[in-house]
Amino acid sequence: MAAWAERLAGVRGVLLDISGVLYDSGSGGGTAIAGSVEAVARLKRSPLKVRFCTNESQKSRRELVGLLQRLGFDISEEEVTAPAPATCQILKERGLRPHLLVHDGVRSEFDDINMSNPNCVVIADAGESFSYENMNRAFQVLMELENPVLISLGKGRYYKETSGLMLDVGGYMKALEYACGIEAEVVGKPSPEFFKSALQAIGVEAHQAIMIGDDIVGDVGGAQQCGMRALQVRTGKFRPGDEHHPKVKADGYVNNLAEAVDLLLQHTDK
Amino acid sequence: MAAWAERLAGVRGVLLDISGVLYDSGSGGGTAIAGSVEAVARLKRSPLKVRFCTNESQKSRRELVGLLQRLGFDISEEEVTAPAPATCQILKERGLRPHLLVHDGVRSEFDDINMSNPNCVVIADAGESFSYENMNRAFQVLMELENPVLISLGKGRYYKETSGLMLDVGGYMKALEYACGIEAEVVGKPSPEFFKSALQAIGVEAHQAIMIGDDIVGDVGGAQQCGMRALQVRTGKFRPGDEHHPKVKADGYVNNLAEAVDLLLQHTDK
Repeated sequence: MAAWAERLAGVRGVLLDISGVLYDSGSGGGTAIAGSVEAVARLKRSPLKVRFCTNESQKSRRELVGLLQRLGFDISEEEVTAPAPATCQILKERGLRPHLLVHDGVRSEFDDINMSNPNCVVIADAGESFSYENMNRAFQVLMELENPVLISLGKGRYYKETSGLMLDVGGYMKALEYACGIEAEVVGKPSPEFFKSALQAIGVEAHQAIMIGDDIVGDVGGAQQCGMRALQVRTGKFRPGDEHHPKVKADGYVNNLAEAVDLLLQHTDK
Repeated sequence: MAAWAERLAGVRGVLLDISGVLYDSGSGGGTAIAGSVEAVARLKRSPLKVRFCTNESQKSRRELVGLLQRLGFDISEEEVTAPAPATCQILKERGLRPHLLVHDGVRSEFDDINMSNPNCVVIADAGESFSYENMNRAFQVLMELENPVLISLGKGRYYKETSGLMLDVGGYMKALEYACGIEAEVVGKPSPEFFKSALQAIGVEAHQAIMIGDDIVGDVGGAQQCGMRALQVRTGKFRPGDEHHPKVKADGYVNNLAEAVDLLLQHTDK
């Protein structure tokens, strides 16, 4: 593999995944990953543009940012690209009225959306709310529509909480797709539109940007398909097999965000 | 389409699906579909061999047969091919110790199976037991195995209860497949082994047999792939679009089991 200086040449902007990179979620709010608070602070003092790009769909941006601030991170709502606000924009543009199957924590993002007489279903990482009853209701709403529309906030397979690996929205999206014979529209990583909106927010071109994430498919593969570079951290949901993934090869694997930031500050143009 | 006499020529044995053909399940046990009790009785008085071939995985055979008998059907446990007993045979043959994600009603079928220190997961139509917690536990068991084995009792998309359409095990199978990056083994229709075991039980060859079911893919498509003929009834989960399915065409569509039995008794050899 080429030297780091070559791999990181021309990088002007950094997209940071949140869960598994900054912190591991869990009961009581979760815990910061060692060195990440300082790493974010150093990155923000550097000339590099920084944007947080998350598929978090259990919490509103306000709740997420509040939690991260309490853990010590320098982060504000305006710096976060998240799937719920992006979904609200799509719903408004297309006159869609959602039946929501989401976690209570993210419901406030949909406060100004018309939900009467639903003509689509929106699912997110609903956690415990993925009961049979709630899944069946979403299924029935879709089956009653002439042109069923299913929007999924991300399609992650699983994520890591402090207590262990947890099923993410992706499997439940697949369940509804299969039962209804339809294909969901994914809002969030690895959708190219989602990465592009994060890049637009910091005015950086894809070829000048690098994604740092713990998900070899959603973060690394998705970013590379948009023309970005991507590093995988060995924290969060990282598993050793990821470094030998049959389809995706990161531009580099690092132990954690602190190491990634060391490399970036050392090897990108001052 | 050819005349019924031609389409039914040489039929010696009949496989009958249960849910959606004999009865619609629901609260209080469910209700017999009009004419089905008499149709089964007439079929069993004829020279045709009859076998019940169900993907029912919420109830043990004993419970299912008891329910059907109370609804007036002439049926015994020995006449039923069902996925739970077939699964138990596979578990024993391969030394597999299952973690079960199944409905309480079917648990007794697994009474003599060793479930300590699980090395596979078995899922069935678990209904309300498809909670997030139970799904997550099954997911975690699979992720901890070096060679994860997932056995699914059928892969139905949905079924019809008296209260409406209900999600079947198939979607949940897809969810675990996606989350774990694995492929499930399906025991039940449309697996060829399952149809063959039903045919063996009545000593009839596939080309002499006809399947009667309400599921265009699981019943009709599956039976045809085994070399059988198949009729779809317009009861149970039947939907008008089934008659224009892009991949599967039944050998005939009939309003209900009574009509199917009329045709069979009229057009098969005496």
